[in-house]
Amino acid sequence: MREVAVIGVGMIKWGELWEKSLRTIFVETALAAMDDAGVDHLDALYVGCMSSGLFVGQEHLGSLLADYLGQKPIPAARVESACASGGLALRLGFIDVASGMNDIVLVAGVEKMTDLNPNEATYALGTAADQEYEGYHGVTFPGLYALMARAHMEKYGTTREQLAMVAVKNHDHGSLNPLAQFPFKISVEAVLNSPLVADPLRVLDCSPITDGAAAVILAPVEVARKLQKPVVKIIGTGQATDSIALAQREDVTWLEAVYQSAKKALAMADKKIEEINIFEVHDCFTIAEICVIEALGLVERGKGGQAVEAGLTRIDGRFPVNPSGGLKAKGHPVGATGVAQAVEVVEQLRGEAGARQVKGACFGLTQTMGGTGGSSVVHIFAVE
Amino acid sequence: MREVAVIGVGMIKWGELWEKSLRTIFVETALAAMDDAGVDHLDALYVGCMSSGLFVGQEHLGSLLADYLGQKPIPAARVESACASGGLALRLGFIDVASGMNDIVLVAGVEKMTDLNPNEATYALGTAADQEYEGYHGVTFPGLYALMARAHMEKYGTTREQLAMVAVKNHDHGSLNPLAQFPFKISVEAVLNSPLVADPLRVLDCSPITDGAAAVILAPVEVARKLQKPVVKIIGTGQATDSIALAQREDVTWLEAVYQSAKKALAMADKKIEEINIFEVHDCFTIAEICVIEALGLVERGKGGQAVEAGLTRIDGRFPVNPSGGLKAKGHPVGATGVAQAVEVVEQLRGEAGARQVKGACFGLTQTMGGTGGSSVVHIFAVE
Repeated sequence: MREVAVIGVGMIKWGELWEKSLRTIFVETALAAMDDAGVDHLDALYVGCMSSGLFVGQEHLGSLLADYLGQKPIPAARVESACASGGLALRLGFIDVASGMNDIVLVAGVEKMTDLNPNEATYALGTAADQEYEGYHGVTFPGLYALMARAHMEKYGTTREQLAMVAVKNHDHGSLNPLAQFPFKISVEAVLNSPLVADPLRVLDCSPITDGAAAVILAPVEVARKLQKPVVKIIGTGQATDSIALAQREDVTWLEAVYQSAKKALAMADKKIEEINIFEVHDCFTIAEICVIEALGLVERGKGGQAVEAGLTRIDGRFPVNPSGGLKAKGHPVGATGVAQAVEVVEQLRGEAGARQVKGACFGLTQTMGGTGGSSVVHIFAVE
Repeated sequence: MREVAVIGVGMIKWGELWEKSLRTIFVETALAAMDDAGVDHLDALYVGCMSSGLFVGQEHLGSLLADYLGQKPIPAARVESACASGGLALRLGFIDVASGMNDIVLVAGVEKMTDLNPNEATYALGTAADQEYEGYHGVTFPGLYALMARAHMEKYGTTREQLAMVAVKNHDHGSLNPLAQFPFKISVEAVLNSPLVADPLRVLDCSPITDGAAAVILAPVEVARKLQKPVVKIIGTGQATDSIALAQREDVTWLEAVYQSAKKALAMADKKIEEINIFEVHDCFTIAEICVIEALGLVERGKGGQAVEAGLTRIDGRFPVNPSGGLKAKGHPVGATGVAQAVEVVEQLRGEAGARQVKGACFGLTQTMGGTGGSSVVHIFAVE
């Protein structure tokens, strides 16, 4: 397989973008990435999107987006793994370039979620759960993650305040990110006093509903070395699945797919988790980030809450997690999230992350997951 | 890139499978393919599905299907290109094995369409068109293909009877396929007297709404050579996009994406179209098959109708097209169609196609498309 680099990244300001359609936010983001890479053509397009059918009544995104980007007749694939769709698009784009099939490949993620009312959006998101064994009984994702949180508190003594500290940290980071949906700080008290959604989770434990897109351009590493930018390579990719229904897991506090996908990606990269300097992970709810850092091996099983409280995962901590603000502050347009994580890591490894720059970052990791961890995708990045 | 072979195929009887859910028909088909290949484990899974979100309220198919097949934690990707989703899954599975990333890869296609009423299903299928410029104005796929048919009749003198002859031929072929949804013959008169859907297209010009699945197992060719079966390789893959909206084409009778995708696949295979012995193509409407055989180069532009009338595309003709019965008689569970085409071609090249066997077939081609040809995927197969 060929070595693969990221030669361009593109992001737009995320939020409730009612004046723009899905194709518009995709094209703006893709053009930003193409500008950054200095390319005017593509060989192929991969787009991660969870459910444009339910959110905006539009499937066939590959054709639509290649067309509106002015790039037909290039091959274009829409890929889906629920909220990990962006991570999956990155993986399949990586395999495409690594295989030698195509050279200049755009990997994008997009989701337009706010055209529906919140109840409809919650239904659409719920299709990432097992519809026959979870959805039909009325449980939604806040409810499923609340079960995980309750179990983690019971089993490991994780506190309600520690959950809140995940949100506070990510808003601290997000306040430094001008493209974040909610670029402001919040307090532990604000989280604890925000409306209850599914006990113990409150509104400020939950990532928001967001319109957004993100894009990166992949190419063989030789192409990247000819450009006037630091060369950021993808040196590992891992993907794994778990039982889609939470009730079928042996331990609902443990994310086996995250563990498996990280293990594969690290093995491919020939790295240990301790060697990674920056992490963008899937904090769809505060409890998710705690479970993820445990499954990644940043802390011992059950110690995630304490680690957050101790500051381990702050930008200036030993393992900076979600310097972008994460899903919580940056927003969570589900199909775009995995690609936006890659944008952040590339900017960090290039030293272009401005006020939220992690000093001396050489290796970065992205992790995104679908549902309650029914799927997970991990990538490892390195700067030459 | 490594050489890739199909080491197993699986199909079930298609139709209105109200007693089975999406996961059930997927698992039955996947197990049939694994039995045929003689494998008990997989390294990865690709599943093509157009719109399980709209049809059955379930996304996150990769996780769901890997789980229910007993294959977690393997990586699993759901891919979508409207009615070409199955062809896209085959292409991405091919790239995965060719790259060296994985060895034993299941490529499946699935769609469960009859749980909705026909109006709802027509809406779901309509999301493959440009929603902002086509769907919102009320046009559906029968209407769009009717425009193409009318233009072809006007420009080239194609007759109403020639359109009917496509359906008659495919039902002749399908009558020999025990897994087809409608395995019986029809007459030109029956087509001409069937209810009008969108002038000039009648019910018997249209492929049906179907529940179904299909699966193939891919592996490096060295693995295939150790098995006790003819070795069928994929020697070419091509994918292309066109404007998603029909109104933006220079000529609505010409399928540029089909032409481009076939050109790429044939170049990769180092074959001329005349060297191919069997074709499975996308006859979602009778006019579609006529336009496709022109874009593939089997006949001159505008001569598709005459070619069908002359018997060129019958099983015993110069270019046998849709020996399986095609979408028209076999059924069209949209995400499954592209994979089912591969199943048919593999069985033909192995000499296992029974009453519908094309004698001496050495090279086969599959072509599937999304929307009115906004995307197209072509594969070339060869038996060693």
